[in-house]
Amino acid sequence: MRNFRMLVAYDGTRYKGWQRLGSSGDTIQGKLETVLSRMLEQPVEISGSGRTDAGAHAMGQVASFRADTALSCREMEAYLRRYLPEDIGILEVTEAPPRFHARLSATGKTYVYRVWNSRRPNVFERRYVYQMPEALDLPAMERAAADLVGTHDFLAFCSNKHFKKSPVRTIRELRIERIREEVRFTVTGDGFLYNMVRILVGTLLEVGLHRRDPACIPGILESRRRENAGETAPARGLCLMEVYYE
Amino acid sequence: MRNFRMLVAYDGTRYKGWQRLGSSGDTIQGKLETVLSRMLEQPVEISGSGRTDAGAHAMGQVASFRADTALSCREMEAYLRRYLPEDIGILEVTEAPPRFHARLSATGKTYVYRVWNSRRPNVFERRYVYQMPEALDLPAMERAAADLVGTHDFLAFCSNKHFKKSPVRTIRELRIERIREEVRFTVTGDGFLYNMVRILVGTLLEVGLHRRDPACIPGILESRRRENAGETAPARGLCLMEVYYE
Repeated sequence: MRNFRMLVAYDGTRYKGWQRLGSSGDTIQGKLETVLSRMLEQPVEISGSGRTDAGAHAMGQVASFRADTALSCREMEAYLRRYLPEDIGILEVTEAPPRFHARLSATGKTYVYRVWNSRRPNVFERRYVYQMPEALDLPAMERAAADLVGTHDFLAFCSNKHFKKSPVRTIRELRIERIREEVRFTVTGDGFLYNMVRILVGTLLEVGLHRRDPACIPGILESRRRENAGETAPARGLCLMEVYYE
Repeated sequence: MRNFRMLVAYDGTRYKGWQRLGSSGDTIQGKLETVLSRMLEQPVEISGSGRTDAGAHAMGQVASFRADTALSCREMEAYLRRYLPEDIGILEVTEAPPRFHARLSATGKTYVYRVWNSRRPNVFERRYVYQMPEALDLPAMERAAADLVGTHDFLAFCSNKHFKKSPVRTIRELRIERIREEVRFTVTGDGFLYNMVRILVGTLLEVGLHRRDPACIPGILESRRRENAGETAPARGLCLMEVYYE
């Protein structure tokens, strides 16, 4: 069996997220497995670096799979590009070391969350930004964001109420920039809990709107209670940019 | 009657172009007129700076209309943004001098045509680029483009076989740039014939693929025959960027 690594971009608008749900074809993983299995004439199961939410996107999702095939990586790329829908793009297929696993080998990830902060609507990127015309106080959000960076118990920023494993994660960087009419959050960490980036952003936006104090973060973290954090920001603004490996 | 000017952006993917066709609602003009007429409680007819093709886009289409209303421009913007579909965006409504007319007052336009020139698919901008992975010879296209700049009879670059008016137009600038994986054509002129930009680009792409000689342009112009020019490039790559006025 050879081991392969795929770099995948997708517009998640019309999908129920990355993870296959039963046999349904409305997930990214499901679509990829269907086309891969047809191409390789064997059932192929792929492992993504992690799930992405329904409606969220990826510029650099990584997935791995094992298969017994004589096809070259270039041939696989060509086949996949031909048969996948145009909202799922194969950027690259490469042969991976035998022990490489997209999820287990990952050491970190970068997500971007894009807010279109203008009264003028963004027509062309409307599927990829959360449009919010209200004024946002960036310095206030930056003060709050500073308390999120580092190693913390992020249970308050997790939607899964029955989360059993360790909710401790490390955020290496949380950058907030204004790029003309866009406010962009770039978050890098070793891993993220369910909905964590969207809840972080939702909470910071409430700070930016002066509905919360910039000093609110330590209390929320300490409480470990989801209801103390802000709303989950809409999935459409979220994009998995890069997955890191050793 | 007051006179108004609107700056409009739209993703033309699901429309049959700018121009209203009878009473149907699947054109940009039709959608705008429906919402404007409801807002102003009177039939409103708008004049665009010109048509755009089915499937083509605009970042800066200009339209004008006359109406008897006490609403402010800000109120109109808010109403339109609320009731228009999210693929049509009102960037601005302003009051215009009485004699302003979006088409008759226009002195020039800039269009951009975007080619995604890579084997790696462009997932996020797929509706706004023509994806063409083959190598393109930019210097050859630039040599050919130089013969298009200036004042010429462009009948060979017009799809309308029964075109009766003067087919003489002036192209002020035709720039071709490579921006990473994109090849972008920026064309500015005093006006354009039906499908002219798409046929210009289609012809230049054939030069870029070495299917035509870079010196072919003067002969095509002189022939005044549509069949001597190249194929019409797909509408999805085309975007009206700006309309100029005195």
